[in-house]
Amino acid sequence: MQPQYQMGYDRAITVFSPDGRLYQVEYAREAVKRGTTAVGIKCADGVVLIVDKRVSSRLLEPVSIEKIFRIDTHIGVASSGLVGDARSLVDRARVESQINRVSYDEPIDVEVLAKKLCDHMQVYTQFGGARPYGTALLIAGISDDEARLFETDPSGTLLEYKATGIGTGRPAVMKVFEDEYNEEAGFADAIKLGLKALHAATEGKFDVNTVEIGVVSLEEKTFRKMEPEEVKTFVEQYEE
Amino acid sequence: MQPQYQMGYDRAITVFSPDGRLYQVEYAREAVKRGTTAVGIKCADGVVLIVDKRVSSRLLEPVSIEKIFRIDTHIGVASSGLVGDARSLVDRARVESQINRVSYDEPIDVEVLAKKLCDHMQVYTQFGGARPYGTALLIAGISDDEARLFETDPSGTLLEYKATGIGTGRPAVMKVFEDEYNEEAGFADAIKLGLKALHAATEGKFDVNTVEIGVVSLEEKTFRKMEPEEVKTFVEQYEE
Amino acid sequence: MQPQYQMGYDRAITVFSPDGRLYQVEYAREAVKRGTTAVGIKCADGVVLIVDKRVSSRLLEPVSIEKIFRIDTHIGVASSGLVGDARSLVDRARVESQINRVSYDEPIDVEVLAKKLCDHMQVYTQFGGARPYGTALLIAGISDDEARLFETDPSGTLLEYKATGIGTGRPAVMKVFEDEYNEEAGFADAIKLGLKALHAATEGKFDVNTVEIGVVSLEEKTFRKMEPEEVKTFVEQYEE
Amino acid sequence: MQPQYQMGYDRAITVFSPDGRLYQVEYAREAVKRGTTAVGIKCADGVVLIVDKRVSSRLLEPVSIEKIFRIDTHIGVASSGLVGDARSLVDRARVESQINRVSYDEPIDVEVLAKKLCDHMQVYTQFGGARPYGTALLIAGISDDEARLFETDPSGTLLEYKATGIGTGRPAVMKVFEDEYNEEAGFADAIKLGLKALHAATEGKFDVNTVEIGVVSLEEKTFRKMEPEEVKTFVEQYEE
Amino acid sequence: MQPQYQMGYDRAITVFSPDGRLYQVEYAREAVKRGTTAVGIKCADGVVLIVDKRVSSRLLEPVSIEKIFRIDTHIGVASSGLVGDARSLVDRARVESQINRVSYDEPIDVEVLAKKLCDHMQVYTQFGGARPYGTALLIAGISDDEARLFETDPSGTLLEYKATGIGTGRPAVMKVFEDEYNEEAGFADAIKLGLKALHAATEGKFDVNTVEIGVVSLEEKTFRKMEPEEVKTFVEQYEE
Amino acid sequence: MQPQYQMGYDRAITVFSPDGRLYQVEYAREAVKRGTTAVGIKCADGVVLIVDKRVSSRLLEPVSIEKIFRIDTHIGVASSGLVGDARSLVDRARVESQINRVSYDEPIDVEVLAKKLCDHMQVYTQFGGARPYGTALLIAGISDDEARLFETDPSGTLLEYKATGIGTGRPAVMKVFEDEYNEEAGFADAIKLGLKALHAATEGKFDVNTVEIGVVSLEEKTFRKMEPEEVKTFVEQYEE
Amino acid sequence: MQPQYQMGYDRAITVFSPDGRLYQVEYAREAVKRGTTAVGIKCADGVVLIVDKRVSSRLLEPVSIEKIFRIDTHIGVASSGLVGDARSLVDRARVESQINRVSYDEPIDVEVLAKKLCDHMQVYTQFGGARPYGTALLIAGISDDEARLFETDPSGTLLEYKATGIGTGRPAVMKVFEDEYNEEAGFADAIKLGLKALHAATEGKFDVNTVEIGVVSLEEKTFRKMEPEEVKTFVEQYEE
Repeated sequence: MQPQYQMGYDRAITVFSPDGRLYQVEYAREAVKRGTTAVGIKCADGVVLIVDKRVSSRLLEPVSIEKIFRIDTHIGVASSGLVGDARSLVDRARVESQINRVSYDEPIDVEVLAKKLCDHMQVYTQFGGARPYGTALLIAGISDDEARLFETDPSGTLLEYKATGIGTGRPAVMKVFEDEYNEEAGFADAIKLGLKALHAATEGKFDVNTVEIGVVSLEEKTFRKMEPEEVKTFVEQYEE
Repeated sequence: MQPQYQMGYDRAITVFSPDGRLYQVEYAREAVKRGTTAVGIKCADGVVLIVDKRVSSRLLEPVSIEKIFRIDTHIGVASSGLVGDARSLVDRARVESQINRVSYDEPIDVEVLAKKLCDHMQVYTQFGGARPYGTALLIAGISDDEARLFETDPSGTLLEYKATGIGTGRPAVMKVFEDEYNEEAGFADAIKLGLKALHAATEGKFDVNTVEIGVVSLEEKTFRKMEPEEVKTFVEQYEE
Repeated sequence: MQPQYQMGYDRAITVFSPDGRLYQVEYAREAVKRGTTAVGIKCADGVVLIVDKRVSSRLLEPVSIEKIFRIDTHIGVASSGLVGDARSLVDRARVESQINRVSYDEPIDVEVLAKKLCDHMQVYTQFGGARPYGTALLIAGISDDEARLFETDPSGTLLEYKATGIGTGRPAVMKVFEDEYNEEAGFADAIKLGLKALHAATEGKFDVNTVEIGVVSLEEKTFRKMEPEEVKTFVEQYEE
Repeated sequence: MQPQYQMGYDRAITVFSPDGRLYQVEYAREAVKRGTTAVGIKCADGVVLIVDKRVSSRLLEPVSIEKIFRIDTHIGVASSGLVGDARSLVDRARVESQINRVSYDEPIDVEVLAKKLCDHMQVYTQFGGARPYGTALLIAGISDDEARLFETDPSGTLLEYKATGIGTGRPAVMKVFEDEYNEEAGFADAIKLGLKALHAATEGKFDVNTVEIGVVSLEEKTFRKMEPEEVKTFVEQYEE
Repeated sequence: MQPQYQMGYDRAITVFSPDGRLYQVEYAREAVKRGTTAVGIKCADGVVLIVDKRVSSRLLEPVSIEKIFRIDTHIGVASSGLVGDARSLVDRARVESQINRVSYDEPIDVEVLAKKLCDHMQVYTQFGGARPYGTALLIAGISDDEARLFETDPSGTLLEYKATGIGTGRPAVMKVFEDEYNEEAGFADAIKLGLKALHAATEGKFDVNTVEIGVVSLEEKTFRKMEPEEVKTFVEQYEE
Repeated sequence: MQPQYQMGYDRAITVFSPDGRLYQVEYAREAVKRGTTAVGIKCADGVVLIVDKRVSSRLLEPVSIEKIFRIDTHIGVASSGLVGDARSLVDRARVESQINRVSYDEPIDVEVLAKKLCDHMQVYTQFGGARPYGTALLIAGISDDEARLFETDPSGTLLEYKATGIGTGRPAVMKVFEDEYNEEAGFADAIKLGLKALHAATEGKFDVNTVEIGVVSLEEKTFRKMEPEEVKTFVEQYEE
Repeated sequence: MQPQYQMGYDRAITVFSPDGRLYQVEYAREAVKRGTTAVGIKCADGVVLIVDKRVSSRLLEPVSIEKIFRIDTHIGVASSGLVGDARSLVDRARVESQINRVSYDEPIDVEVLAKKLCDHMQVYTQFGGARPYGTALLIAGISDDEARLFETDPSGTLLEYKATGIGTGRPAVMKVFEDEYNEEAGFADAIKLGLKALHAATEGKFDVNTVEIGVVSLEEKTFRKMEPEEVKTFVEQYEE
C-alpha cells in the first residue's frame, strides 16, 4: 500500500516525484509483472522465443491467445502485460516494417525497429493525455547475419540480452539463465533451457498446449512460429 | 466499498494504480456484469448466439430490445452491458464491414473485424477525454469455411472460444458449458445446450418471448436471426 | 444524500463508479424525473402523445410551453426534463429529417431518426467536455404503414413501447397502462386512457388548458397537434 | 450557505447534482435575482418594457445605464443581471436580426430570434470551458401583426408571458400583475400598471430619472424608447 | 480572510458562487483598488484626466510611469491596476481605432471604442483558460461635438460619468466630486477640483512630478498630455 | 511560509487571490530575487551594465556564464533569475530586432523593444498553460541620441531608471545608488559606482573574473561587452 | 520527505513555489542524480568522455547500454538519467546537426547545438502538458579549432566546463577534478584522470567492460568511440 502523501504524484501522468521517479511508469511495470511469462534466448542457430499461455478453460481456443507475433519475415515479438496494449504495439511494429520496405526496398534493421518502438513508448511517459504502455516486448530478429534479442519496457528503455524473460516469472527465469546459459548451444538445447526456465517460473504447471515457440533462424534468416507438433516434440524431449 | 486511499486512481481515466491495474477498465467490466446474459456456441453446423431479453413490461415491444445484431451477411454480434455503447460499436462494425467490401470487393474476415473493434476499444483505455466502453461483444461469423466465435471486453482484449457467455449469468453459463459442451453437436443440440445454460443463468425465469437466437451457418455462410416461431420450437423442445 | 466517498465519481463526467455505473447519466435521469409528465399510446388508428403542461400563472401564454413538437410531416415528439436540452434535440431531429429528404428524396424512417438521436445522446455519456442531456423523448411516427412509438433517455438507450410515460408521473402512468392498455382501441379510447393516466399522475390537477395532444394517424400518415377545441372535447368526454 | 458535501458539483460547470439539477445554472439565476427590476406587459396597443435604473450617484450619466435595447425596428429587449453578459447577448441578437434581413430580405420573427438566443444560452449550460450567462432578458416585438413578449433565463428556457418581471423585484411585480393585469388595456394603463408594479418592487424608491420605458406599437410595428419628457408625463400621471 | 468553504469558487475562473457572484471578477477589482488613483472630469471645455504617479525613488524616470495614454487624436485613457494588463488594453484600443480609420475613413466614436474594450474584457469573465483583466480604465474623448467620459472595470461593465475616479483613492475622490462638482466649470476649475480630489485621496502627499494631466478639448477636438511646466502651473495655482 | 488556506490560489496560474494579487507572478519574482546581482547605470557617456558572475568552481569556463547579452548593435541586456528563461527572452529580443531591421530598414527603438518583451511576459501572467517568466532584465540602449535604461519583471511591468539593480543584491545596490548616483558622471565614475554597489551587494566577495561589464556609448551608438583586461583595469582602479 | 503543505506545487508542472523554485525541475534533477556517472575532460588533445556502464548481469549485451552517442562527425554526447529521455534528446541533436549541414553546408557549431538542445529543454519547464526531461548531457566537440565541453541539465541551463561529471558520482568526480585537473594534459593523462574520478565515484567497482570512452580529437576534428581493446589498454595502464 502506498502511503497517503504520495497520492498526488500517482494521479498526474507526466510528473516526477520528489525522488526523481515517474510512478506511472513504475506502475505500468507492475502490469507487466502480472503478465504471463515469456523468454527469449540467443543461440548459435538464431533466437528462440517461448511463451507460457496459461489457458484457464477448455472452452477457449488456445490459438486465440496470441503472445508471439510475426512482425516481418525476419522479426518476431513476444509480449507480456496488457493484451490490448501489446496488440497496439505489434500493429505499429508491422507498419514500421512495411514503411521501411516501401521506402528503402529492404527489410528493417532489428535494432532500428526496436528503437522506433521505444521512442514511441517514451513519448507516453513524457506527455499528458495518455498513460504509458502496460506491456513489455521481446524483439527477436536477424540483421546483417547476426541474431539480435531486445527487451523493451513501459519507460521506453531498450536493452539487448543474450537471454532474458518478461512477465510474472522473470526472477525465476533469470536465475536459470544466469546459471546455465550457454551461447554456443543450438536450437534444441536453447529450447530445452527455455522450457526449464518456464518450468521454474510456472512451478511446473505447463503442458504442451500452453507453450508457444517462435524461432528466428540465422541460416534461413526468417522468423516462424513452430507448429504444435514440433512444440510437442520439444516439450516431450524436455520432459524426459 | 472502495477504501479512501484509492479514490485518486478511479477518477483519472488513463492512469495505472500502484499494482498495475486500470480501475476504470475494471469498473467498465462491472457494467458488463450487470448486463443481460448472452451465450455463443460453436458447433458442427456453425455458431449459435442466444440472448435472454428480460422484458419487464407487457407494454414494451420485445422486438425493440435488440441484443443480437447482423453486421454483415456472414457476421452477427451479441452484446451485454451499456445499450448505447453496444449500438455505437455495432455501427462501427457495420461501417468497417462495408469499407472492406468497397476496398477489396470481398466480405471482411471475422477475425480482422474483431481485432479492429478491439483496437478501437483499447484506445479508450489509454487516452484521456473519454471513458472505456461499458460493453462486451460476442462476434460470430464464417471466414474461410470456418466458424469463428470471438469475445471482446472493455479492455480491448480478444479471445476466441468454443462456447462462452457474457453478462450477469456468465459464471452459471460457463459452468454448464465446461461440463456439457460438445463441439460435434449440430444446431439443434447446440441451441438446447445454450438454452440450458441460459436457464441456469436466469434461474429458470425465461420464456419464449425473452429469448432471441441468431445463427451463422457453415453451409449457407450466412448469419440470420431466427423468426419467433422458430425460436418457439426450440424453446418448446427444450422445455420438454 | 450521497455519502462523501462517492464525490469523486460524480464530478468527472466520463467515469465509471466501482460498481460499473455512470452517475452523471443517472443524475441526468433525475432531471427527467422532475419534468412534467408526457404519455404516448399506440392504438389501431396510430399514435397519441399527451402532455400535461402545468401552467403556474395566468400571466403565462400556455402556447409557449411547448412540450410536443412536430419534427416532420409524419413524426412528432413529446419531451420531459430540461427545456433547453429538449429544444436542442428537437432542432437536431428536424435537421436530420430534412437531410434525409434532401439526400434520398423520401421521409426519414422513424426508427432511423430515433437511433440517430440516441447515438447523439450516447456520445455525451462517453466523451468529456460536456454533460449528458437532461431530457427524455417520446418519438411517435409512421413508417412503412406502421405506427411506431420510441422512448429515449439520457443514456442514449432506445426502447419501443406500446404505451409509456416519461417525467414525474411515470410510475402512476405505467400502472394505469399495465392494467388497462388495449392495442385494439381507436384514437378516442386511446386518448381517454391517456387522460386517465395523466389524471392519476397529476392527482387530478389538470384542466383543458394544461393538456396538449398530438396524434400521428395511420390513415393520413401525418402528425398534427390537436387544436385547443378538439382537446377540449376529449377532456370533456373524459370528465363525464 | 451550501453544505460542504455539495462543493464538488458547484465547481464543474457541466455536471448534474445527484438530484438532477445544474447548480451553476441556478447560481447564474441568483445573479439575475440581484439585478435591477424590469417588467414587460402586453396590452391592446402592443408591448411595454419598463426598467428601474437605480442611479446611485448624481455624477453618473443616467443615459449610460442602458437596460432597454433596440434590437431591430420591431424588437426591443430589457435585461437584468450581469451587465457585460447582457451586452454580449444584445450584440448577438442584433447580428441575428441583420443576418435575417440579409438572407431573407425581411425582419426576423420575434419568436425565432428568442429561440436563437435561448439555444445559444443553452449551449453554455451543457459544454465545458465557459460559465452560463448571468442574465435574463425580456424580448418584446411584433410579428405577423401580433405583439409578443418572451422571457429567457440562464438555462436557455423560453416562455411567453402576458406580463412578467425579472430581477430583484420579480416576486412583488408578479403579485401586482396576477391581481390587476388586464390584456384589454391600452399603452397608458399598461404603463400605469407597470409603474405600480415597479413601485411595489422598489418599495417606492424611484423617480422619473430612474425609469426607462420602451414600447412596441402594434399600429406602427416599431419599437422605440420613450423620450425622458414622455416618461416624465407617465410617471407624473401615475404619481397623482 | 476567506472562509474555507468558498475556496472552490475562487479557483475555477468561469464559475458562479451560490449567491450568483463571480469571485474572480471581484478579486480582479481588488487589484484595481490597490492601483494608483486616477480621476476624470467632464467640464465645459472638454474632459480632464489626472493621475497620481507615486514615484518611490529618485532613480526612477517619472516619464516611464505611464498612466495616461493617447489612443487616437481625439481619445485618451487613464488606467489603474495591473500595469501590464493596462498596456495590453491600451494596445487593443489603439488597434481598434486604427481599424476604424482604415475601414470607414473616420475617427472611431468614443462610445463605440469603450464598448469594444468592455466586450473584450467581458469575454475574460466568461470563458476559461485566462483570468479577467486586473485593470480599470477612464476613457475620455470627443465624438459628435460632445465630450464623453467612460469608466470600465474588470467585469466589462461600462458606465458614463460626469466625474469619477478609479484606484486606491476612489472613495475620497468621489466624496469630493459629489460635494463640489460643477459641470459649468472650465478646464482651470476642473483641474483644480481634480487636484483637490487627488489631494484628498493621497492625504496630501503629491507633488508636481507625481501628477500627470491629460485633456480632451471640445474646441480643438484633440487629446493631449500636458507638458510638465503646464502641470506645474496648475499645481502651483492649486497649492496657493 | 504560506498559510495553508492560500494553497488554492498558488496552484492555478491565471487566478487572482481575494486581495487582488497574482501569487504566481510574485513567486516568479522570488526566482529573480535568488538570481545573481546585475546593475545598470545611465551616465553622461551612455549606459553601463555590470554583472556579478559568481563562479563556484575553477573547472567552469567563466565565459560560459553569460549574464550580459548583445541584442543588436545598439542594445544590450543584463539578466537575473532563471537562466533558461533569460536565454528564451534574449532570443526573442534578437528576433524582434531583426524583424524591425528587415521591415523598416532601421534599428529598433529601445523602448519599443522593451515594450514588446513586456507584452510577451504579460501574456504569461494572464493565460493558462504556462508559467510566468522567472527572469528580470535590464535593457540598455541608444535611440534618438538618448541613452535609455529599462527594467522588466515577471509581471511584464516596464520602468525606466537612471540607475537600478536586479537579483539578490538589489536592496544593497539601490541603497548605494540612492546615496551616490550622479547623472553627470562619465563611464569611469559610473563603473566605479556600479562596482561599489556590487561590492556592497556581494559583501565584498567578487574578483575580476566574476565581473562582466557591458557599455552602450552615446558617442559610438553601439553596445559592446568589455574585454577581460579592460574590466580588470576598472576593478583594479576601484580596489585602490 | 516533502512536508505535506508543499504537495500542491509538485503536481502542477509549470508552477512556481512561494520561494521561486520549480519543484518539477528539481525532481527531474533527482532522476539525473540516480543515473550512472559520466565524466568529460577537456585536454590539450581535445575532449574525453568516459562513462561507467554498470552491467548487472552477464546475460546483458554490454554494447546495448549506450551512454555515449556520436551526434555528428565532430560532436559526441554522454548522458545520465532517464534512458528513454536521453535517446529522445540524442535524436533531436542528430536532426539539428543534419539540418545545419543541409541548410549551410557546414558542420553545426558545438555551442549552437548545445543552446538549441537547452532551449528545447527549457520549453518543457515552462509550458504545461509534458514533464521536463529527466536527463543531463555532456556535449563534447570541436568548433573553430577549439575543443568545447558543455553540460546541460533538466532546467535547460547550459554551462561550459574544463572538466565535469554528471550522475550519481558527480560529487566524488568533481572533488578529484578540483584537486588534480590539468588542462595541459594529453589524452592519455586525461583518460587516466577520468578513470581515477570514476573509480572514486564507483568506490572502485568498475572493470574494463563497464567503461566506455569517447574522444574528440583537436587534430583530426572528429569524434569517435574507442574500441574495447583500446579502452582495455587505458584501464590496465590505470590499474597499474
